[in-house]
Amino acid sequence: MAKANAFYAQSGGVTAVINATACGVIQTARQHRDVIGRVYAGRNGILGALNEDLIDTSKESAKAIAALRQTPSGAFGSCRYKLKSLQENAREYKRLIAVFKAHNIRYFFYNGGGDSQDTANKVAQFAKDTGYQLQCIGIPKTVDNDLPFTDCCPGFGSVAKYVAISTAEAALDVASMCETSTKVFVFEVMGRHAGWIAASAALAQKNADDAPHIILLPEVPFRKTKFLLKVRETVKRCGYCVIVVSEGAQYANGTFLADAGGKDAFGHTQLGGVAPMLADLIKSRFGYKYHWAVADYLQRAARHIASATDVEQAYALGQAAVELALAGETAVMLTIVRTSDKPYRWKIGKVKLARVANVERKMPKHFISADGFGITAAAKRYLAPLILGEDYPTYKAGVPEYVTLKNERVKRKLTQKW
Amino acid sequence: MAKANAFYAQSGGVTAVINATACGVIQTARQHRDVIGRVYAGRNGILGALNEDLIDTSKESAKAIAALRQTPSGAFGSCRYKLKSLQENAREYKRLIAVFKAHNIRYFFYNGGGDSQDTANKVAQFAKDTGYQLQCIGIPKTVDNDLPFTDCCPGFGSVAKYVAISTAEAALDVASMCETSTKVFVFEVMGRHAGWIAASAALAQKNADDAPHIILLPEVPFRKTKFLLKVRETVKRCGYCVIVVSEGAQYANGTFLADAGGKDAFGHTQLGGVAPMLADLIKSRFGYKYHWAVADYLQRAARHIASATDVEQAYALGQAAVELALAGETAVMLTIVRTSDKPYRWKIGKVKLARVANVERKMPKHFISADGFGITAAAKRYLAPLILGEDYPTYKAGVPEYVTLKNERVKRKLTQKW
Repeated sequence: MAKANAFYAQSGGVTAVINATACGVIQTARQHRDVIGRVYAGRNGILGALNEDLIDTSKESAKAIAALRQTPSGAFGSCRYKLKSLQENAREYKRLIAVFKAHNIRYFFYNGGGDSQDTANKVAQFAKDTGYQLQCIGIPKTVDNDLPFTDCCPGFGSVAKYVAISTAEAALDVASMCETSTKVFVFEVMGRHAGWIAASAALAQKNADDAPHIILLPEVPFRKTKFLLKVRETVKRCGYCVIVVSEGAQYANGTFLADAGGKDAFGHTQLGGVAPMLADLIKSRFGYKYHWAVADYLQRAARHIASATDVEQAYALGQAAVELALAGETAVMLTIVRTSDKPYRWKIGKVKLARVANVERKMPKHFISADGFGITAAAKRYLAPLILGEDYPTYKAGVPEYVTLKNERVKRKLTQKW
Repeated sequence: MAKANAFYAQSGGVTAVINATACGVIQTARQHRDVIGRVYAGRNGILGALNEDLIDTSKESAKAIAALRQTPSGAFGSCRYKLKSLQENAREYKRLIAVFKAHNIRYFFYNGGGDSQDTANKVAQFAKDTGYQLQCIGIPKTVDNDLPFTDCCPGFGSVAKYVAISTAEAALDVASMCETSTKVFVFEVMGRHAGWIAASAALAQKNADDAPHIILLPEVPFRKTKFLLKVRETVKRCGYCVIVVSEGAQYANGTFLADAGGKDAFGHTQLGGVAPMLADLIKSRFGYKYHWAVADYLQRAARHIASATDVEQAYALGQAAVELALAGETAVMLTIVRTSDKPYRWKIGKVKLARVANVERKMPKHFISADGFGITAAAKRYLAPLILGEDYPTYKAGVPEYVTLKNERVKRKLTQKW
């Protein structure tokens, strides 16, 4: 009898360490070849399953799979595609099960954020209802760090480290130039709804007046006058002012600062650009020379400065997912459980997928300083361990040795196309 | 008799490795305490000399000075201040010599770009004309890599490495998302007049279709239609398109792409923002979803991923400056002389300051590909060695251990203020 196969897919925005999770899944599955036949990866996430476009990871060498651990972004492709509810589109679920059945897939590992956990839950439910035996395990991933139940989300620690270091470095630059040149630096980072990433900019602070002097979080409504006063007061006291702003910073009425009033061609508010907007605001009021930076994808792809803690957790979650599935578990998302702040200790836990779906975790009030422009000691205690350790990729000719897989397609078995 | 002292100043935009040069100067001077009394650093560059605001580096511990090697930006402060010509403002030169005389400064090490070499030359000339014995040594520094006579400029190799790695990382991100999301990524880097930095984005390419697919250099006039055609053709062939653009990219008539038509409050064209401008252009024509990043100070302060070659050269130049001055040399700028491409070999040379002043080195024609959107094999051969090796700073609690000096002021001796 053919052994059962596994399906693994990456979903949503990718991270510097999501491939470390893939590495954990595949290497662990390979250690259980007696039970798990092959690991098929979805090309471009769940779309790969719908399209029966499966990648046969058994064609990749052990060396290539090992190199995934140090390669950022999604090696099999990811997608932004949310399955509708069963009521709205049962056809999608039927198709998934048909593809799984055709390829004898009995393990479903879905590596993503909140939407993906929701999808994993629906697939688990549908499989159960239709009597198809399938172990569904959700593996958390999001730079936004906004999943509930888990202490942190793989991908976040590395962005946090990148942002903390970049802020400290740029601040040294501004400090050395401020006497005759730039006095204000605005650094825009990701975080549409939650300020975790912007908050982590504070992790390189050693003294009271160290940058960032102002952090603008989506959780704290932007008040222009208060902000401008703080900028001027900081420039007067320190000689310069470093501002870190979430792309999702917003006014009290929920309008994004970066929203120039328009939507893009698809009706979405296209964000990005809050940094130049703030820099202009400050310049027009005070005349300070400014510089601004927008890190965008650079921050979440920055594997070269990944947090070793983050890499380790991402890998361990992939490993645990396979082990848990083999132990018969299903319909759960794995979590990171913190057991100690200092020294930092953690273990892997789990939570029912049904509880995770579509819950978003923002920065709690006690993590935000009284004036709303910084973070508290409690926040630093939480964030600090997540950036611990450096996990450098190997280099060749001055650049990291990131792997590109062969990504060979599994022969299609269904006659019906999607 | 009091021993002669040395004056060291950092000038213009700082870099990830200018402090490594400072480290080389100070450590080497300390090895010659029999001849050089103290090294005084100018607070905020040459302004520190004019204002008699000298920093006594002898107050810093050996450990702190050693840590300069791994600390980005200018530890003593830099400035954007160009001395006028002797005819226009002899008063400045007289003041400098008065301050030098008051503090028995007989060695002048000026660490900067083209303007600074010009200043060093004028100071050398003035000292000679007025019979004040002073060894003036110019030490090159500029991320722009646009100084003549030297094979490369300290600071550039590290930016080049940062840009090459960041481009490769972001490209992996876009590649994994392009099926359902972002198809175009625009990355804006420094380089107002010369495209060296943007060009180095190509250093992580391994295969023909690897990112960056388009590089926009200031040396190549921007042609909108040709550019848009190339973007569409790339998206069709590769599924996505990564564009790296110099902040100084310009139309045939010399207008910057980033110039929205306005000047800032001081009459300068405020650059920055060519990335969103191009992204919008592409979106409005083809509807492609885009992301863009502007690295700004992040790139030149990114000591965490500095090129080991760059750090080594920056340090060696500081060291050589002191040794050359002790050997009686003056009115020269040190240079890097390449003696072999592969394996890469270099040594330190020198050139008369008078020849350096205000000459700018752009990318030569044979470094630019036929279609103007990329670089040639010759360019890669030149650039590749400059990013070789990683020189990681030490870390504590997840962030680099960058040093902040005490920067104690030397007691003033002149009654007249500047």
